[in-house]
Amino acid sequence: MNWIMVDKAELDDAQEVWLSGVRAEHIYSVLRLSVGDQLRVTCVNGPRGEGTIREWREDRVRVACAWGEVPLRPSLNLLLAMPRPKVLRRLWAQIAALGVDHIHLLGADRVERYYFDSHIVQPDVYKPLLLEGLAQSGGSWMPNVKVHPRFDSFFKEVFPTVYSDHLKWVADPREKATFIDQLSEINDEREWLLAVGPEGGWSTSELELFTDHGFLSVGLGSRILRSDTTTISLIGMARSIVESTRLWRKEDENG
Amino acid sequence: MNWIMVDKAELDDAQEVWLSGVRAEHIYSVLRLSVGDQLRVTCVNGPRGEGTIREWREDRVRVACAWGEVPLRPSLNLLLAMPRPKVLRRLWAQIAALGVDHIHLLGADRVERYYFDSHIVQPDVYKPLLLEGLAQSGGSWMPNVKVHPRFDSFFKEVFPTVYSDHLKWVADPREKATFIDQLSEINDEREWLLAVGPEGGWSTSELELFTDHGFLSVGLGSRILRSDTTTISLIGMARSIVESTRLWRKEDENG
Repeated sequence: MNWIMVDKAELDDAQEVWLSGVRAEHIYSVLRLSVGDQLRVTCVNGPRGEGTIREWREDRVRVACAWGEVPLRPSLNLLLAMPRPKVLRRLWAQIAALGVDHIHLLGADRVERYYFDSHIVQPDVYKPLLLEGLAQSGGSWMPNVKVHPRFDSFFKEVFPTVYSDHLKWVADPREKATFIDQLSEINDEREWLLAVGPEGGWSTSELELFTDHGFLSVGLGSRILRSDTTTISLIGMARSIVESTRLWRKEDENG
Repeated sequence: MNWIMVDKAELDDAQEVWLSGVRAEHIYSVLRLSVGDQLRVTCVNGPRGEGTIREWREDRVRVACAWGEVPLRPSLNLLLAMPRPKVLRRLWAQIAALGVDHIHLLGADRVERYYFDSHIVQPDVYKPLLLEGLAQSGGSWMPNVKVHPRFDSFFKEVFPTVYSDHLKWVADPREKATFIDQLSEINDEREWLLAVGPEGGWSTSELELFTDHGFLSVGLGSRILRSDTTTISLIGMARSIVESTRLWRKEDENG
């Protein structure tokens, strides 16, 4: 935990909070802080700031928060073919750390239906893992998770109202051109939607549906990667491009 | 296993091999192949090719290999501050899948000494994990692993003879410019050396040493990532740039 995550509802009017459990334990045993010491705090979906230890009472600690700026909301959204539950368990914190606004978990021809019965798609299981990623990275925006066991229903019910104007990419191992080769496509500040397929790949009809909906193909080089490796490395690359785009635009306008 | 990995020493003069154990089990239970069926094979540090099932004898299978091209040797090398053993266990296969020529595991001020006592730096533990990554991705080049518990000794004994002419990067969370912002630095086909620090970051004197040795700083955006997330997303980005560079150069020469 590089930041201690605090929920708005936990704060009193003076912006002070009583922490117990894992967070108090972390402050006591790892950070080893005493009354008067300072620590980094983040309010979920709100600002980051500085906390000051006010009081220890048994295994609880009172922290006063002085809030600074709200981090930028991520402009990247992920459409992820439902991975094996074991793989998804490892991914939650890393996706939250990298910074994604919406995560849509999608059924597909090559996704086993029973994956959706796993506890790992239950909010009480994944929320602590997402919080762990935010606490690690300094992000404050809790990703919004939606589960769509039917591939079609995402495109019928969600896509048209939310994503039709996004810049959309589908990762395709057969595609030679990586993001780097397609940087010239990326000259605006639209939000992104990034689709990552199942281990066995999207089916032909699924890939056609992506194309019909305006997705561009993006390759990952000459190798076939596990879906978690693909997800991390694509999001890593995408956010680096998205964060840089604003800068380029400014330079273009000035130059 | 998208490819079945075969060692040169296992092949007879007719390029046939008896497989048993995990590989035979995979061919039998997952791929469900019979005599005459074909599968994808890769020779470690050699070519990829096509195998044909010749014979099943109890739990062994005889495969005849017809070899094609040798995949390009990765031109990316990784200098990784020794991660926690649990994290490194998860990383081996992913690093091999992404494709790295040398992996140097390095001690540092903020690396616990006892990490180096772990089984996870023993070749008989990590080699099967590296092979798993190659079998997944279709890479044939087995990464060369070197362990340097002393930070200094790498720079004194290895760096000058091997890496002084490489394009060198050190990941630095304080650096604002990502690879994307520094693409203009990358206009040649030198091999790369990419340094990723420990969870707590490199110390000031370590960062100075990197600068003194010609490393450029590369940022990863505005968040602080776990060292495994950093490693995967940086290697993913680096290989995508390295694979594209050749293409750009050709375009420049023609244009």
